[in-house]
Amino acid sequence: MNKIFQKEFSLVPRSRGFHLITDEIVDNIPELSEITVGILYIFIKHTSASLTINENADSTVRADFMTHFNSMVPEGKSSYKHNSEGPDDMPAHLKTALLDTSLQIPITSGRLNLGTWQGIYLCEHRNKGGSRKLILTAIGN
Amino acid sequence: MNKIFQKEFSLVPRSRGFHLITDEIVDNIPELSEITVGILYIFIKHTSASLTINENADSTVRADFMTHFNSMVPEGKSSYKHNSEGPDDMPAHLKTALLDTSLQIPITSGRLNLGTWQGIYLCEHRNKGGSRKLILTAIGN
Amino acid sequence: MNKIFQKEFSLVPRSRGFHLITDEIVDNIPELSEITVGILYIFIKHTSASLTINENADSTVRADFMTHFNSMVPEGKSSYKHNSEGPDDMPAHLKTALLDTSLQIPITSGRLNLGTWQGIYLCEHRNKGGSRKLILTAIGN
Repeated sequence: MNKIFQKEFSLVPRSRGFHLITDEIVDNIPELSEITVGILYIFIKHTSASLTINENADSTVRADFMTHFNSMVPEGKSSYKHNSEGPDDMPAHLKTALLDTSLQIPITSGRLNLGTWQGIYLCEHRNKGGSRKLILTAIGN
Repeated sequence: MNKIFQKEFSLVPRSRGFHLITDEIVDNIPELSEITVGILYIFIKHTSASLTINENADSTVRADFMTHFNSMVPEGKSSYKHNSEGPDDMPAHLKTALLDTSLQIPITSGRLNLGTWQGIYLCEHRNKGGSRKLILTAIGN
Repeated sequence: MNKIFQKEFSLVPRSRGFHLITDEIVDNIPELSEITVGILYIFIKHTSASLTINENADSTVRADFMTHFNSMVPEGKSSYKHNSEGPDDMPAHLKTALLDTSLQIPITSGRLNLGTWQGIYLCEHRNKGGSRKLILTAIGN
């Protein structure tokens, strides 16, 4: 029987923007250390916040992500029909689709096998998104 | 031995646009009920239609997706070299890359563990895409 | 016990652009032939190169991808704060987020179960990206 672990938990709330959450994820699944070879799946249960993997060192990268996505998917376009939940809502749905609702990261020797510069981002697209629910599922030997 | 189920099937054809297909997917894999903890993988075998997870309630969200992606990846750009299959073809390839060719959804207690507002979208980018083939693979205990 | 195979290797270096790497991936994991039903995960350990699945036949599709992404995420925007690593660096991070850091492909009868027109692309966003590291993980029965 292979090992499967699954955890559902809520992230600490973050402000609108892009935030490094690698450590918070690893802290929530200590069972990673029991898996020699496998995959960690990270799933966010929301449609106005998303995930991605990107540069973990220079915080200006995350600032530039915020600027770029706000420009690429602007608020207040007259073409939006779905606007009853505020001007940040429909752009949040579109940004979620352009980024990721789930991530898959290899597990090797009990640890996430990320590249040197890779970190996990929470992409919070709402002005007041609150606490976001994640499901972690680790499968392996 | 963990459980692995795999099904290949064709979706009911849809018109160009974004369509909720959560129920059609679940109906095609009744074996989900046999998995306590695991992952469902959904893979689309095409390069001009794609998948994403987004808001499942208000149909104007799906209409706004259509408008946004048509604007973000316009037809008829003079820079396109690949235009022998019609003006909707090269934009369809690019939209497919911006959205998802595969989805991964946690399975918990025999059901997809989606957030309250999450539904699975077929993103049909061709004017006459026809019936699209999916592969469902469920892995778990 | 299900089967799990994991391989880390470096791709042959490619120039900036979109490149078909399906054969190079399959050649690096001959253990695929031992899996009847499962999933192959492909993970790239970088934040300025990415992966996607798209049209495998006409090379003009890959040329149009290059043109489109260079236009969608331009170099030299005055809004970029992260510019110490050259004008192609911050756009490379953004393109990586818009495309994929990992792919999941069904395995059926010992082979990747791709659609007729689907191939795996390396998306090299840097002018001198060098050799890129991938991790392949195959899980199945």
